[in-house]
Amino acid sequence: MAKITPISGFPEWLPEQRLVESRLLDQIRATFESFGFAPIETRAVEPIDWLLAKGETDKEIYVLRRIHDEGNDAGDARLGLHFDLTIPLARYVLQNRGHLAFPFKRYQIQKVWRGERPQEGRFREFYQADLDVVGQDTLPLHYDAEMPRLLYETLSSLPIPPVRISINNRKVLEGVYRGLGIDDIAGTLRIMDKLDKIGEAKVGALLRSELRLSDAAIDTCLALGRITSPDDSFVDAVRDLGESNAILDEGLNELAFVMQSLTDLPAGSIVADLHIARGLDYYTGTVYETALVGHESLGSICSGGRYDNLASEGSVRLPGVGVSIGVTRLMSKIFGDGMLSPSRAVPTCVLVAMISENHRSEAAKVATSLRQRGIACEVHAEPVKFGKQIKYADRRGIPFVWFPPTEASAPHEVKDIRSGEQAEAHPDTWTPPGDDLHVRIERPS
Amino acid sequence: MAKITPISGFPEWLPEQRLVESRLLDQIRATFESFGFAPIETRAVEPIDWLLAKGETDKEIYVLRRIHDEGNDAGDARLGLHFDLTIPLARYVLQNRGHLAFPFKRYQIQKVWRGERPQEGRFREFYQADLDVVGQDTLPLHYDAEMPRLLYETLSSLPIPPVRISINNRKVLEGVYRGLGIDDIAGTLRIMDKLDKIGEAKVGALLRSELRLSDAAIDTCLALGRITSPDDSFVDAVRDLGESNAILDEGLNELAFVMQSLTDLPAGSIVADLHIARGLDYYTGTVYETALVGHESLGSICSGGRYDNLASEGSVRLPGVGVSIGVTRLMSKIFGDGMLSPSRAVPTCVLVAMISENHRSEAAKVATSLRQRGIACEVHAEPVKFGKQIKYADRRGIPFVWFPPTEASAPHEVKDIRSGEQAEAHPDTWTPPGDDLHVRIERPS
Repeated sequence: MAKITPISGFPEWLPEQRLVESRLLDQIRATFESFGFAPIETRAVEPIDWLLAKGETDKEIYVLRRIHDEGNDAGDARLGLHFDLTIPLARYVLQNRGHLAFPFKRYQIQKVWRGERPQEGRFREFYQADLDVVGQDTLPLHYDAEMPRLLYETLSSLPIPPVRISINNRKVLEGVYRGLGIDDIAGTLRIMDKLDKIGEAKVGALLRSELRLSDAAIDTCLALGRITSPDDSFVDAVRDLGESNAILDEGLNELAFVMQSLTDLPAGSIVADLHIARGLDYYTGTVYETALVGHESLGSICSGGRYDNLASEGSVRLPGVGVSIGVTRLMSKIFGDGMLSPSRAVPTCVLVAMISENHRSEAAKVATSLRQRGIACEVHAEPVKFGKQIKYADRRGIPFVWFPPTEASAPHEVKDIRSGEQAEAHPDTWTPPGDDLHVRIERPS
Repeated sequence: MAKITPISGFPEWLPEQRLVESRLLDQIRATFESFGFAPIETRAVEPIDWLLAKGETDKEIYVLRRIHDEGNDAGDARLGLHFDLTIPLARYVLQNRGHLAFPFKRYQIQKVWRGERPQEGRFREFYQADLDVVGQDTLPLHYDAEMPRLLYETLSSLPIPPVRISINNRKVLEGVYRGLGIDDIAGTLRIMDKLDKIGEAKVGALLRSELRLSDAAIDTCLALGRITSPDDSFVDAVRDLGESNAILDEGLNELAFVMQSLTDLPAGSIVADLHIARGLDYYTGTVYETALVGHESLGSICSGGRYDNLASEGSVRLPGVGVSIGVTRLMSKIFGDGMLSPSRAVPTCVLVAMISENHRSEAAKVATSLRQRGIACEVHAEPVKFGKQIKYADRRGIPFVWFPPTEASAPHEVKDIRSGEQAEAHPDTWTPPGDDLHVRIERPS
């Protein structure tokens, strides 16, 4: 039999950690829905050739095979686990096009799988929380501006450090590169994308050695990558580089529109950052990255952008814009740094003590009454000594123990086992004092 | 490229269906937590030999392989997708035993995969919602009685037809069978489990042909299977069959305890049913099945039982009792019969109209104000004619359209597009009249 050990790259959380994750996901869903996004889930599998046709070649796909079929899968289409939620979305939209209202606004929170070598912040199984708007033929720029607003509202509603959302537009980069006479736009983007990792000197060297750019062109590329602004003042800075063409104008207009739409958000939360390239992804306009302020080395916890051709069918094109929150990357940072914990390890607020075998139905009645009023409770399994029952509550982190009366005329009592305080209470009216009703997700002080 | 078609056995829902499913799952989670169960999730994969060692041999396991590794998986332990949530639980509890408080009460709502031939009510990918209590060495019978109560509370809180939870105890069956001189208890259970499908005559014939039971023994087995009672009166009926031994006594006592603990639940919701056998599962005492009243042909939507040896490590045994709700089976019935639908197809309550390009920031302000008060809203992407914006809302099922003022002194107005009524409103105070704030899950009238 297999040794019982964790499997590298497949993280699992303890119950009190999963309590934190599930509360954060509930909050994320609530914000997504408050912007009118509807939920979908797609099956975990797609045909391999669909994954390969739409996917990036460097993704390690997990292929499925039925155990009794090994070496002989002629009967089934070959299936693989999805490695993102965008490719399944493309298939889902094409498949259900007649049943969807466009622009189609959906969110999707599911696990994805990649057979990559696990490393810090990179997993083989992880949660993504994706938001996309998909249009038919056209999709207004309005949605490019809605995404960072939604991200800001979502992430700032969580008890985590503040975030900084960086926005760029591929057309600005392409416009400047084309103005410099560069033909290999994809190659340039791929190298420029390494700025954070290897710095300007090495990026410059790569542009020289791999793409044979002139010193002047390299200087302009690097100067462009240095431009940031909290508003639309980046436009003048880019104009100062001296290039001018239709695609650059379009990109500057788009990015300026997005930045102007977000001026009501707090200073520092949104920044135009011309060095964001998203080198390996198939974006065609706006692109986004998101840093957890003070934890920038974690990498982007939420990225995305505009893709003008998610999918097509006959003459119908489906452009979209979307973002993906790396939930597991974020959670692993939160747990690794001890950033958040639940106010108690279990949902239970009250343990109803068991007085004697004859009091079972009375205990059940108390519990039902408390639950009907939204107070989570457990009934102790056996009528052991009260000290043992209190210890049980303490061991689980349950704050209150309820004592039904031992004789008909006596009152119920409830004890706060943290303070030791005990008082009369009635199962139809008592509520926990303070904020003990629900589990709270807190930053340890 | 692959043709875009559904894959048999991998169901997917439209957004308005997923809205129903996600609300039902939220309600299920809330009830589970109100009984003090904590959430966990386990990775989707387990080592193949762990799945095979603990699993039933008839389950079709999906084996994973990395696409670049085909035919050469020496590097990785061989992994398969889990086909239930019990075997992962056993591994999780052994792996994290030092970090868990026992009895460990957990719920787990995840998809599982089985490479079976798809048919009505049977899928290759489906959601299970599992509840288990796992003890160390011992686990009080209290929890056997808590499971049906929890199931009743959970399922009766959903807008679905009433359920009937049938309870039996394997020890009663084994006691009677042993009293009849039957040695092959597992074989008898497996055949008796077919009663619902093939009826008494064919079950009797199988008991005769496969196990060579006497006519008298067969009559007693079938008579036992006919016993049902809404309370503990089944005890006398079983005693009347004339058998008596220690295991039968133990089983009758256990089942009577469970039934006596549940007398406060509504008549008809809980029944002792001596024909429940759960033939293929590894239960050792209490067993449960659940029928949707009026839809019995769907099969059990929630089954489970007591297993005295979920896992063991050295001298430590981990007994448990649990149930599993077949969420996807239930949802496919609900959608197939058109049993439930959402009051609107999207979470959005209000569409904020776009007056002109100059009014973008005003529209965003209105939307933010509404959202801060829990009202889900969208901003129309472009300042097209109001008729077109109202049509957009109508097409999506959004009930209200908000018109910011066209000049500073004018009031905001909001229109209920179903009634056509339009009235003044203020973004900081307006709330939707009636019960339009949240999506409601309703039975069509």
